[in-house]
Amino acid sequence: VTALDSGILVLTGGTGGAKLVRGLERALGGAALGVIVNTGDDLTCWGLRVSPDIDSVTYALADLLSRERGWGIEGDTFQCLDQMRRLGAPAWFQLGDRDLALHLTRTELLREGKTLTETTAEIAKAFGISARILPMSDDAVETRVLTTEGELSFQEYFVRERFRPQVKSVRFIGAENATPAPGVLAGIASAAAVVIAPSNPITSIGPILAVPGIRDALRWTDAPVIAVSPIVAGAAVSGPAGDLMKAAGLPVSLEGIALAYADFLDVLVADSQDVGAHVSDSQIELLFTDTIMRTDDDKLRLAQFIIAVAMDRHRKVMVG
Amino acid sequence: VTALDSGILVLTGGTGGAKLVRGLERALGGAALGVIVNTGDDLTCWGLRVSPDIDSVTYALADLLSRERGWGIEGDTFQCLDQMRRLGAPAWFQLGDRDLALHLTRTELLREGKTLTETTAEIAKAFGISARILPMSDDAVETRVLTTEGELSFQEYFVRERFRPQVKSVRFIGAENATPAPGVLAGIASAAAVVIAPSNPITSIGPILAVPGIRDALRWTDAPVIAVSPIVAGAAVSGPAGDLMKAAGLPVSLEGIALAYADFLDVLVADSQDVGAHVSDSQIELLFTDTIMRTDDDKLRLAQFIIAVAMDRHRKVMVG
Repeated sequence: VTALDSGILVLTGGTGGAKLVRGLERALGGAALGVIVNTGDDLTCWGLRVSPDIDSVTYALADLLSRERGWGIEGDTFQCLDQMRRLGAPAWFQLGDRDLALHLTRTELLREGKTLTETTAEIAKAFGISARILPMSDDAVETRVLTTEGELSFQEYFVRERFRPQVKSVRFIGAENATPAPGVLAGIASAAAVVIAPSNPITSIGPILAVPGIRDALRWTDAPVIAVSPIVAGAAVSGPAGDLMKAAGLPVSLEGIALAYADFLDVLVADSQDVGAHVSDSQIELLFTDTIMRTDDDKLRLAQFIIAVAMDRHRKVMVG
Repeated sequence: VTALDSGILVLTGGTGGAKLVRGLERALGGAALGVIVNTGDDLTCWGLRVSPDIDSVTYALADLLSRERGWGIEGDTFQCLDQMRRLGAPAWFQLGDRDLALHLTRTELLREGKTLTETTAEIAKAFGISARILPMSDDAVETRVLTTEGELSFQEYFVRERFRPQVKSVRFIGAENATPAPGVLAGIASAAAVVIAPSNPITSIGPILAVPGIRDALRWTDAPVIAVSPIVAGAAVSGPAGDLMKAAGLPVSLEGIALAYADFLDVLVADSQDVGAHVSDSQIELLFTDTIMRTDDDKLRLAQFIIAVAMDRHRKVMVG
């Protein structure tokens, strides 16, 4: 991977992204991997600061992520949650017993005055992770989902209401005044390739792009920007991406993903099920491979495909 | 129990006290029971506010207290502790997974600006407890143990070092500026009887007595003050009471307990094993019964003995 020694930088949020990050880490090693993570879903639960997307990436890289659930720690128990429920506390956001250790540690580091960037790095180190995990911003950005049943936080919409209410629009409170976390803009500028994970373009990648400066950095970077489509055969692989794209006026298709990232995307990696599909924008190269990640081998294979694309693009840039 | 309708008020700390409180609650019902609890052992662990003695009383009254351990919740698991240890956090103070719910709740209520008194009452209510549990003070009082290996917090001395270091002296930081929690002085003044639990007189009852006003209230109350000896056959039933009494210049005997409480004690309840023993102070009535509480029946029986003593004393006061 000598041509990629400045590394691959992934923008991610949610479950699919965490899986791909794990595959890239297995393929490249952690030292050549940077991850910029959505924090628009962050919440305070039982007084603890929870960053669901950072947590998923951390557990994926520590090889602890639950395979059956897609969030939290494999084989975790829920004794504390059960007791909190008995004490009358809200129990819809499920924190596992082992999982609590991460949130207790984050909450204490933040209370000591450390930034989310520093806190995230310290926790990653404690888990033995060598890849660099960066929050999109150290400033608070809160994704709010306006539905026909009122405005909800993202976790209220996604977890508590199981994305049942019909979405009208989405906004990111605080985004306009947020600044990218230290290392984010430089990372995009110096990366060998930028990968947009197969994440929800509205509420996983959308908040990252809403932080002033990040979208421009993606437009200006010399690195190829490669997205993996979260939409396969006209529907989201998991979660509410389809509903949210519709609400944003985007078609639920590869065309919709291409439109969402039109101003900076070089390559769109789509699933083999969509072979034959096209996108209108001729500047975007459309490639097909198996993108559904059920096993560790699936993750590794998709990661290797992306690395090959990145090296090929890189070579073209180098050769001119 | 009509003669006791102003209730029994217990001063307590530690394991033996929690057991007796449970026995009294079974005998009297919660409505006629008040408990003033030592908070000198309180600590912050993983950013959570822990009040070990209040917790033990709360769990005892909720019938959740672990019988094998004497602290924490019966049958609790320690998954979070295990993960904290892996993350490099201090793990000598063992918080169970179900136990965490109480500490998370307390920490959040305190952060909202509630006092420890209000927080303790709110948690007791959530556990369905009708007895009134009062911290000795809403102000911070910290028990420090000066040993031949340096000065330690009480939990460092008791739990981390397993009360192995030799004790030179004990002090209660903040006690001189602390005020009794709301209800403490009025409770002592209006109680039908005050019971000093079979707790360590130096580090369980000592901090309560060090809060200005409480010792005087015990001297002045019309209620009989009845102590149960934590010393049986010249040694502490459990824990470091013997070492701490020696360091304070007290004999490790009934005489030592009588001396510790000489200025306010009316009755000393001692164990049957000590039948025949005397105390120098002729103002203190010495009574013998089985005081070792192994089973729920033991707790109830000792409680009933104390209630009978209290009613007898009360009758004498009433009759004149």
